[in-house]
Amino acid sequence: MHPHARFSGGLFPCLPAFLLALLLCAWAVCIPAAAQQRVERYGMYEVVLKGKDAGNPFIDLELSATFTRGGERFTPEGFYDGDGTYRVRFMPPAAGQWTYVTHSNHPDLDGKTGSFTAVEGANKGPVRVADTHHFAHADGTPFRPFGTTIYEWAFQPEPKKLETLATLKKAPFNKARMLAVPPYKPGYVEGPEKLSEFPFVGTSRDNFDFSRFNPAYFRSLERDVKRLSDLGIQVDLILFRPYDKGQWGFDTTSDAVNQRFVRYMVARFAAFQNIWWSLANENSYIRHLTDEDFDRYFQIVQKYDPYQHLRSIHNADRIYDYNKPWVTHVSLQYYNAVKVFGVSPMLRDMYRKPIVHDEINYEGNSPSRWGQLSGEELTRRFWVALVGGAYATHGEVLESAKVRGWIAGGGQLAGTSPERIGFLRKIVEAGPRRGLAPIDQLFVMNAAGEPGEYYLYYFGDEKPAEFPFVLPVKGLRKGMKFRADIIDTWNMTVTPVPDTFEIGEPPRYRVADVDNRVIKLPGRPYMALRIQRVGDMPKAAPEPARKPAAGAIVEEEL
Amino acid sequence: MHPHARFSGGLFPCLPAFLLALLLCAWAVCIPAAAQQRVERYGMYEVVLKGKDAGNPFIDLELSATFTRGGERFTPEGFYDGDGTYRVRFMPPAAGQWTYVTHSNHPDLDGKTGSFTAVEGANKGPVRVADTHHFAHADGTPFRPFGTTIYEWAFQPEPKKLETLATLKKAPFNKARMLAVPPYKPGYVEGPEKLSEFPFVGTSRDNFDFSRFNPAYFRSLERDVKRLSDLGIQVDLILFRPYDKGQWGFDTTSDAVNQRFVRYMVARFAAFQNIWWSLANENSYIRHLTDEDFDRYFQIVQKYDPYQHLRSIHNADRIYDYNKPWVTHVSLQYYNAVKVFGVSPMLRDMYRKPIVHDEINYEGNSPSRWGQLSGEELTRRFWVALVGGAYATHGEVLESAKVRGWIAGGGQLAGTSPERIGFLRKIVEAGPRRGLAPIDQLFVMNAAGEPGEYYLYYFGDEKPAEFPFVLPVKGLRKGMKFRADIIDTWNMTVTPVPDTFEIGEPPRYRVADVDNRVIKLPGRPYMALRIQRVGDMPKAAPEPARKPAAGAIVEEEL
Repeated sequence: MHPHARFSGGLFPCLPAFLLALLLCAWAVCIPAAAQQRVERYGMYEVVLKGKDAGNPFIDLELSATFTRGGERFTPEGFYDGDGTYRVRFMPPAAGQWTYVTHSNHPDLDGKTGSFTAVEGANKGPVRVADTHHFAHADGTPFRPFGTTIYEWAFQPEPKKLETLATLKKAPFNKARMLAVPPYKPGYVEGPEKLSEFPFVGTSRDNFDFSRFNPAYFRSLERDVKRLSDLGIQVDLILFRPYDKGQWGFDTTSDAVNQRFVRYMVARFAAFQNIWWSLANENSYIRHLTDEDFDRYFQIVQKYDPYQHLRSIHNADRIYDYNKPWVTHVSLQYYNAVKVFGVSPMLRDMYRKPIVHDEINYEGNSPSRWGQLSGEELTRRFWVALVGGAYATHGEVLESAKVRGWIAGGGQLAGTSPERIGFLRKIVEAGPRRGLAPIDQLFVMNAAGEPGEYYLYYFGDEKPAEFPFVLPVKGLRKGMKFRADIIDTWNMTVTPVPDTFEIGEPPRYRVADVDNRVIKLPGRPYMALRIQRVGDMPKAAPEPARKPAAGAIVEEEL
Repeated sequence: MHPHARFSGGLFPCLPAFLLALLLCAWAVCIPAAAQQRVERYGMYEVVLKGKDAGNPFIDLELSATFTRGGERFTPEGFYDGDGTYRVRFMPPAAGQWTYVTHSNHPDLDGKTGSFTAVEGANKGPVRVADTHHFAHADGTPFRPFGTTIYEWAFQPEPKKLETLATLKKAPFNKARMLAVPPYKPGYVEGPEKLSEFPFVGTSRDNFDFSRFNPAYFRSLERDVKRLSDLGIQVDLILFRPYDKGQWGFDTTSDAVNQRFVRYMVARFAAFQNIWWSLANENSYIRHLTDEDFDRYFQIVQKYDPYQHLRSIHNADRIYDYNKPWVTHVSLQYYNAVKVFGVSPMLRDMYRKPIVHDEINYEGNSPSRWGQLSGEELTRRFWVALVGGAYATHGEVLESAKVRGWIAGGGQLAGTSPERIGFLRKIVEAGPRRGLAPIDQLFVMNAAGEPGEYYLYYFGDEKPAEFPFVLPVKGLRKGMKFRADIIDTWNMTVTPVPDTFEIGEPPRYRVADVDNRVIKLPGRPYMALRIQRVGDMPKAAPEPARKPAAGAIVEEEL
């Protein structure tokens, strides 16, 4: 169990949160239990308050708490959790003594104070953008997203959820895209997966009360987010989705409801270390919401999330402008961009943010063509993304008598790509600490790494029989030495090349081994080549004089 | 000669503008010559005024004129043209009687009035965005840009310019990218192409006065813009460029100078029907200007250009955000985007503006690798752009004893691509009136056209031996009939296929000919296939029922 769980009643898997709140709290004023006096850095501290719930506390309530430690100060919003219980959650971003005071228009909840100690632990903190195109935890540990897609796993019966968690425990994925609101499906209305809880009070399209959230629904979702956190999995939590088919009305709620929903989600989930905000899945299919609407919802998240968790949005046929300042990274659905080399580098230059290809088609046997990839092809697309300096997300709809589509309900994985994605993940994590960046991207579209140090070439479905040892000149000096590994990305083997290669005289663009040596390759598809510098760094020679270009007017080489 | 030239003295090729102004104008107040009482719609009307030039009229002058016709009202800025001559230019966008009144802080220039008649003529008017991803003249005539690059042609000796114009007269290009300010080159300082005029008063880096423009320089540039207009060529006029090599100081001028320069350019050039504004070439190589600086310069153009000519900017290693509202179209330099299929459709969805690949490498034998394409490869990149629903721009640096690099000074073309680009242009212009749009772009990356009517497949360097007649289902109905042409894009032949093909029962994604017929192809590279509907449209059948996707949560097919 994750260390901070013992401090947050609502997160216990087995004990309903409101019961725990009753155990811990006296009426009208909560006395934080003794155990709550210490919480891990980046863990969750929760102020639990009791108060009357006259009126509609989902609309009328103003509640926040200011947490202070020296000059540091955060004021997260609180929320009503039903049954006269109110909570304000806080993720302490620094160790030490924190004090708080609550603010509320509800006399029972205002001006409550307390303190607790945050202690250093193993928690690496939330994931941030690092080095423009990559990610790292708040403590600086690089985070390379190798995500999977389990949109609806949190809406399944508990045995199915446990099966999903068991699968994930063994799988190579460290990020999961999932919906915060279930899609409409007949099975969720009548059938084995019939839902008992909905985000709004009510049980069917006939009686949903969009002015009241259903706390039990959100407590269940929190528990699942926490269970993924315990597995080291970041959650790309999708706030809006277009999958209502005109039934429940969850994707046609008014702007006022949407804004309340976003604030409620932030109040409940922002203190979870493993949250990423995905404003929508296939945003443009929510036909009544414009990009300007999403601008506002983004800005609400930005304003109320004290920890500035990652924020993006996933597109259908209208691509949101990821240049907007509140977008932290690109979360793209555009299959072409990972079918061919060279697109991710362009997207990096366009957005100057991390590029995550969050939907690249799925491995599967679906009648829908977005779910018909072979394991080979899904793996190939991952590699194309990674050598473009980007990241990608897995999904599977491979159904059989034993297995149902993973992207919907989770359960078991049956595909051949996850193991290869795990192999790729290990290679990437053993690569440059700053992550893979394209090298000479406009003229060598299939290579990434770190100039002068590390080169990863990927050959996709080509079947090269050899690789002349020639590298883009950037970062190279005469006398540098390199070793190489032949990587079979499908059979998951790494075969060292016995030779050591030595850099010759650097000409203008590309420099060969001093003896013009060539690496033999096996003539199979899905091969990669890893080249790493060895030995001492030769003394720097002066930059070679550049021959001026004849008719050229470029100042620098593009 | 273009009809409106006779009304605009400054544009006569042979008579210096200031002499003509003296002929037409009395001191202090210009009496427009009788000939100026009638001007073609979208032609240029010029109010010429004389006044003292005490102070610095490039800085101190406020001058504009309001042109009125019924409820229509335009207030272009005027400019100082040296020698006590001031001009306000106007491009009447409607036929009829126009009146004007001048406004100025210069008593000699204020409150002057006049009128003239604009008459319908052959002028199609400036080019605008049409149908989101395409262009059309103001009168609605589609304009498909097939551009070329002649950055420095306007800074060459007159015989070389005439040679360039003669070449363009026979070439297939209808747009030219050219610099408004010369790059620094030794030959422009000492040598056969030594420049006698500069944009600023002065003759060398030692004495440029950045507070004063040099009208003679701009008159020469106008004459060249006009000569391209006479050939039916749109001018993509590049305002800023990074090619000064620390010499003249033209790319390190202050923000105040830059803003004045932009306004002066707009005052002089906006009334030319064939102007497109290109804010910069390789913007990010102008290291002291940020995108926020360009935001301001864009907004100045937007504010002062009464006709809202097209506006874009060309990138180096930092791509400007083309989503910004003042950008009318994308003017991209990213070679990868035309090397592979499928990128232009993504850019269309990203920007929802026309996509022009304005630098895709050049046909040539340059020692620089951006100028080493074969004619085959440049032609292939054009086709890849066009079947992606985008446009592309040609350039050539093929040097020989007889020919120097075209992209710099113009002169003669020696490459093999222009003729093929002309062939492509004819095919595109004979295609759908709305232009080519990708069809089923995420799954069929090499086809564009108009669903149900017209399909253009391009096979690039593949050598297919056959094409099974199978089309994406969108827009198709059972019983529709099609004919096909096999197009050899390199040998420039169009070979009709004798068969007529008939659409069978449409399944979910792609529909075949009723008899599953296959078109034989010659197994050569650079082939295309054009398929056009023939005969009566069969009666609409009800949309085929869609099989619901098993694990799918998408509302619509992406």
